[in-house]
Amino acid sequence: MPDMATADRSELEGLVSALTDELRRRSAMVATAESLTGGGLGQLLSAAPGSSDTYLGGVISYATDLKLKLLGVSPETVRDHGVVSAQCAAEMALGVGSLTGADYSVSTTGVAGPAEQEGKPAGMLFIAVAGPGGVVTTELHLDGDRAMIRAETCHHAVSAVLEVVRAADPGAHPA
Amino acid sequence: MPDMATADRSELEGLVSALTDELRRRSAMVATAESLTGGGLGQLLSAAPGSSDTYLGGVISYATDLKLKLLGVSPETVRDHGVVSAQCAAEMALGVGSLTGADYSVSTTGVAGPAEQEGKPAGMLFIAVAGPGGVVTTELHLDGDRAMIRAETCHHAVSAVLEVVRAADPGAHPA
Repeated sequence: MPDMATADRSELEGLVSALTDELRRRSAMVATAESLTGGGLGQLLSAAPGSSDTYLGGVISYATDLKLKLLGVSPETVRDHGVVSAQCAAEMALGVGSLTGADYSVSTTGVAGPAEQEGKPAGMLFIAVAGPGGVVTTELHLDGDRAMIRAETCHHAVSAVLEVVRAADPGAHPA
Repeated sequence: MPDMATADRSELEGLVSALTDELRRRSAMVATAESLTGGGLGQLLSAAPGSSDTYLGGVISYATDLKLKLLGVSPETVRDHGVVSAQCAAEMALGVGSLTGADYSVSTTGVAGPAEQEGKPAGMLFIAVAGPGGVVTTELHLDGDRAMIRAETCHHAVSAVLEVVRAADPGAHPA
């Protein structure tokens, strides 16, 4: 459970609320594909009453096998780039988009720590957002302990979707 | 984000840690199918370092459509009993078990509130645990606001899986 100061939490709630408003204006839905955050992002997006208008759900692909089986991440991506990679993040977001029919989808994959993974350090992670305009991936390197890294990743993921949704024409339904 | 007192949080961490230990002794994995909790249960089960040894991931089937499409809940169950029902909880747990190959699986479905749903009051919810011995469902009626109900449900869900896992022979691998 992330330990966050009240100020951070209310800033995050504000971001989620802004995202929900933008999605609602476009009659658009979002889905999640989470590895690093393990469900924390879904929890945030479903926290407010009425969130079923804008949040569909998604997949927690914590095990690599679920990334392949449920989200359609290619074995070559895992072999050549690892699960902590921009390629894997992009395929996770696109995969959950196809699976759920969401207009926008967002994924998280990375190293929560404390141990490194695939030779990559704790705090190295990727977020991908897929939408009508394609897929955008972001690489981040965060400091802090495991809980802080996971909580911060949720924060960045909400911001990343919000940015993509805001860039879309509010008059046009994406579907 | 659930607002919990430190005492509750450390009790919950203790429960999760006990569950992880019992699963590890049996080389068993757990998966989650979440509606009401929206990812909060997965977040808990993936919070500790090394949790990928015992937590596979799962599905956040927040929208009814995802309960049908991803988890194989039957349309008749939704029509005759609603998504807030023991039948739906059981099918969600069994569905995510089949989908992921987990030894144990747990689902949550219910009314987080504040509004009622399907004519059922806020705080009415079902948890199902599927394992080698079959599926066990529990009906609960919780008090409190939306965040409290969601947090309490996670707590009850972890307890419910722990009970089922403990009842299984630690010498025999379930798979």
